[in-house]
Amino acid sequence: MRDLTEKTISEQTIYEGKVIDLKVKEVRLPDGKIGKREVLNHPGAVAIVACTKENKLVVVRQFRKALERTIVEIPAGKLEKGEEPLDSAKRELEEETGYTCEKITKISAFYTTPGFSNQIVHVYFTNELSKGTQQTDSDEFVDVMEITIDEALRMIETGEIIDAKTIYAVQYLQLNKG
Amino acid sequence: MRDLTEKTISEQTIYEGKVIDLKVKEVRLPDGKIGKREVLNHPGAVAIVACTKENKLVVVRQFRKALERTIVEIPAGKLEKGEEPLDSAKRELEEETGYTCEKITKISAFYTTPGFSNQIVHVYFTNELSKGTQQTDSDEFVDVMEITIDEALRMIETGEIIDAKTIYAVQYLQLNKG
Repeated sequence: MRDLTEKTISEQTIYEGKVIDLKVKEVRLPDGKIGKREVLNHPGAVAIVACTKENKLVVVRQFRKALERTIVEIPAGKLEKGEEPLDSAKRELEEETGYTCEKITKISAFYTTPGFSNQIVHVYFTNELSKGTQQTDSDEFVDVMEITIDEALRMIETGEIIDAKTIYAVQYLQLNKG
Repeated sequence: MRDLTEKTISEQTIYEGKVIDLKVKEVRLPDGKIGKREVLNHPGAVAIVACTKENKLVVVRQFRKALERTIVEIPAGKLEKGEEPLDSAKRELEEETGYTCEKITKISAFYTTPGFSNQIVHVYFTNELSKGTQQTDSDEFVDVMEITIDEALRMIETGEIIDAKTIYAVQYLQLNKG
């Protein structure tokens, strides 16, 4: 297999923000020419496929400024500094939905937009939920819902569910019934 | 259902790049307080689930600077200005893989990172491929591969396939066998 590596020649930090930072890198392409790459660094995130005893998927409705609309997603959030993904998944699940869980299993991890960002989402599954305490961040407003797979599939049809991780979650449940 | 809209109070453009631009927006939160949102605008993208007569998935190996590694993905690319997603899908498929197709069907569209970006990926399926001409962009270096679903599942295990749209594609093929 060919070596397709693009070595960094120089880089410039454009922005260092609360969640993300943006760099522009000059790179040596495999053919020796010079190219430019925009790279957005993200601390990484977790998402949780959480099912109730009634086999319903726990989801949250929230406004997404980047989309200028409210959509329905599985609970998710970014990793805090030094936090392990497993701990982050348990924390985000309780903060966003008010559910705690004893047993939780990693089922996947994927980059969401490898073309320009290193954001990775670690995905966990649990169906052993207990009632805890919802406690969202001060700038986070979410409504919790519990939906069947059929309802989730209808919400994909209507576009209420329209994000990669939640569509992944629904397909995961279809492929791993019972 | 509650109105969770966050109205923009002011916005600042941090960066306007070749592919993406970055804005920081001050918003009015649902409780009346003021919050800050980082929003990365992207022109949108297409991805293609392309299967050969032998029922193999066409994928490309490419170096992703944001990840500093080479990964295997389904063919994809960003929309050009004014371009329809369907035309973009046919164009990207031929440019990246050298395959043309007569019939191609939209199977999904999803936001990859609604937490900070409006990047949407329109996903198409085709299994009617003909040989065309590979012609990548001057700064794009890809190796084309054709893999079975079992090989794809193994590459998910090993992490060679580790991006959301390609994992979506493999799940889609598992759910829509034959």
